[in-house]
Amino acid sequence: MELYSKEYFMNEALKQAKIAFEEGEIPVGAVVVCKNRIIAKAYNQTEKLNDVTAHAEMIAITSAANYLGSKYLIDCSLYVTLEPCLMCGGALFWSQITQLYFGATDPKRGYQRFKETILHPKTTVEGGILANESASLLHDFFKKLRN
Amino acid sequence: MELYSKEYFMNEALKQAKIAFEEGEIPVGAVVVCKNRIIAKAYNQTEKLNDVTAHAEMIAITSAANYLGSKYLIDCSLYVTLEPCLMCGGALFWSQITQLYFGATDPKRGYQRFKETILHPKTTVEGGILANESASLLHDFFKKLRN
Repeated sequence: MELYSKEYFMNEALKQAKIAFEEGEIPVGAVVVCKNRIIAKAYNQTEKLNDVTAHAEMIAITSAANYLGSKYLIDCSLYVTLEPCLMCGGALFWSQITQLYFGATDPKRGYQRFKETILHPKTTVEGGILANESASLLHDFFKKLRN
Repeated sequence: MELYSKEYFMNEALKQAKIAFEEGEIPVGAVVVCKNRIIAKAYNQTEKLNDVTAHAEMIAITSAANYLGSKYLIDCSLYVTLEPCLMCGGALFWSQITQLYFGATDPKRGYQRFKETILHPKTTVEGGILANESASLLHDFFKKLRN
């Protein structure tokens, strides 16, 4: 059971997304929560690191595993402001993470557009948490980029 | 056009897989080739780094992008001894890599078991290069692990 609400943790992920926004990165943020504590925070850094693998989720998974000293994120939750892509969905599979919470859906590149099961059978999923806030931030980012 | 053969580069990837084997890692190796030169070499390090994302392909993609100073691996080929998983397939999609060559197939976790297109439409694929050598190495590893 988590003492803080899902919205609380998603808001922490949104704060990470806002850092990405300010740094000119597609604004996606993530936190990993274990036993009601945030053990990893990350935001998308694909531009800064010149690395397509540097999605918020990937950095958060690596950071959380480093914190725990375990590559499996058992009893952990990932909160991410946007539905993970296939790469991140594949990484979440390997991590055997217990819960995935995401904000806005990504009909174009989200893992859910695939018919087959992508995540680990142990992983439970809930989308739509602070979805509007996440979608607004992404919308503002791409609007700014086009201008 | 590549002056060296596909088998030559795959053998270089196999050498990386053998390093993984010696270090107690699932023996998978990869190299990235650009303009007939190897610009990145990597092997699976999930155990050593305690990180499920540290597959040979992921490390090789990051390393090649770092070398090129570009996150897109245009005119590059990835040679990997085992069919990439979904995470690595997703990363290859983002990288827009030109060619993927792999050795053994992975019916259980390979990206090809998915019906939908995983890789970038620009990416061409050829499997089965030095497949027996790669499969033997994996077989020996798991046999040793069980004993």
